[in-house]
Amino acid sequence: MNYVEIIDILGTIAFAISGALASMKKKMDVFGILIIAFATAVGGGTLRDVLLDVPITWMRNTTYVYIIIASVIFTLIFRSKLGYLRTSLFLFDTIGIGLYTVIGIQKGIGLELPIVICIAIGTMSACFGGVIRDTLLNEIPVIFRKEVYATACILGGVSFFVLQALNVSDGINYIVSGLVVIAIRLIAVIFKVQLPNIYKEG
Amino acid sequence: MNYVEIIDILGTIAFAISGALASMKKKMDVFGILIIAFATAVGGGTLRDVLLDVPITWMRNTTYVYIIIASVIFTLIFRSKLGYLRTSLFLFDTIGIGLYTVIGIQKGIGLELPIVICIAIGTMSACFGGVIRDTLLNEIPVIFRKEVYATACILGGVSFFVLQALNVSDGINYIVSGLVVIAIRLIAVIFKVQLPNIYKEG
Amino acid sequence: MNYVEIIDILGTIAFAISGALASMKKKMDVFGILIIAFATAVGGGTLRDVLLDVPITWMRNTTYVYIIIASVIFTLIFRSKLGYLRTSLFLFDTIGIGLYTVIGIQKGIGLELPIVICIAIGTMSACFGGVIRDTLLNEIPVIFRKEVYATACILGGVSFFVLQALNVSDGINYIVSGLVVIAIRLIAVIFKVQLPNIYKEG
Repeated sequence: MNYVEIIDILGTIAFAISGALASMKKKMDVFGILIIAFATAVGGGTLRDVLLDVPITWMRNTTYVYIIIASVIFTLIFRSKLGYLRTSLFLFDTIGIGLYTVIGIQKGIGLELPIVICIAIGTMSACFGGVIRDTLLNEIPVIFRKEVYATACILGGVSFFVLQALNVSDGINYIVSGLVVIAIRLIAVIFKVQLPNIYKEG
Repeated sequence: MNYVEIIDILGTIAFAISGALASMKKKMDVFGILIIAFATAVGGGTLRDVLLDVPITWMRNTTYVYIIIASVIFTLIFRSKLGYLRTSLFLFDTIGIGLYTVIGIQKGIGLELPIVICIAIGTMSACFGGVIRDTLLNEIPVIFRKEVYATACILGGVSFFVLQALNVSDGINYIVSGLVVIAIRLIAVIFKVQLPNIYKEG
Repeated sequence: MNYVEIIDILGTIAFAISGALASMKKKMDVFGILIIAFATAVGGGTLRDVLLDVPITWMRNTTYVYIIIASVIFTLIFRSKLGYLRTSLFLFDTIGIGLYTVIGIQKGIGLELPIVICIAIGTMSACFGGVIRDTLLNEIPVIFRKEVYATACILGGVSFFVLQALNVSDGINYIVSGLVVIAIRLIAVIFKVQLPNIYKEG
């Protein structure tokens, strides 16, 4: 296992738990929870691999399916310990977008795509799982809420290429840029930061 | 024509009728009905073929398009005979997921994918047409409603591999496993069966 | 640059502006506007290229990304000049579906697909960007509203193949058929034309 596989598996776990928590909030039955967790966890990676026209990771490697099932069982068992569902859901979703942004960028670089395309793919693959989850659950997609969501992914992507230009080694860069995404979203939500208002009439 | 093509065409007809009925409930115009029927009928198969990276069935074979158009015309002509729209829609949707689950599994086996992945693809391709239909019509996606929907597909998939292990011939197995999906959903809805409640606080 | 590339870029601009206007109606922040504009502009083309299994245009050519960013900046600067958001959004969306219908058909012909499939792909790729935009913004998808939307794309596609049979040169045919789509939708909305009502009970 290399860096990228470890990050990919951690991202899958984070999104599976976020999907399970979101469907538990809606009081779905056990299989419903499993399916939403599955769609949330593999959604972003599937979009990424389809766009890049590479084999879809989870389809050739059953590890992902078992990890998702284990994550759902874990969430069901420890749900009383996870405290406020709302806060736990937010945290795992945030960890998920941080990790998936980095993986998307890394896969784009592997195919020698231009920087701006790598950032776009990292952002889209990070946001897509949450959009699927919220659409299936008939919630307003998370990307639309006033939280700094995709913005965090874009800035994490910019940070990655800035650090790369400064000759930071890839292993460290993955970790730092993933943390940049997570930190920006955490700070934005905790301190209710919003981007400058462009609407005079608002 | 072999088993699989016949099942695929029957599934396309069932989903096209379900899409047409759902859009007639919303009083859409004729072309709107056609488009929703088309998206419902080809949606699941398109997702399946994109995931499997094989040519998309309906794109190389115009038979599917003509079958969908004929199904819409049939539905328009016989709509007064179809009785309660709600019940007809439920029946055709249920037949559709039964047939598409089996086709998805069969295509996964053809590519020698692991069992658990075949079941996942069968379930996703069966559910996706209905999710597209409901999203386009701004309804709560069927997968979220309290009916045993994806659960039926998963159990039908499990049944397929159990019967295969018992050396049941493929032709019979396709029919039986498709009927298992249909029977589970029918029984669940008629008798209002739900999975055990995991929410004490509920 | 040939005909097709010019039409593709004009379609991208029109959809990027329509996405930016729609997200400004919802008072999203700057990055949110950029992402919705991006998803609207590339959504239809991505679906088209995935269905056709050809490389995805915007991923190999950064021009598209920069055009989308420029369109968003243009929309932000001139938003007070764009008058009624609702009308501007309608116009750019209509221009977008006209151009994308023609591109989809042209790409289908290039792969020697049957006529009815070419029209289906043109219609789906034209409508998909708007569906993504409205789903992300939690609006009722435009395709469902009472406006003649997909109908215009289908009729524009039919017009293309009729003119082709009459030996009209491709360059002129692209322009005329794109204008047919735009004209049908404009006329339908301005004069509140609807298809004949098929619902006696309505």
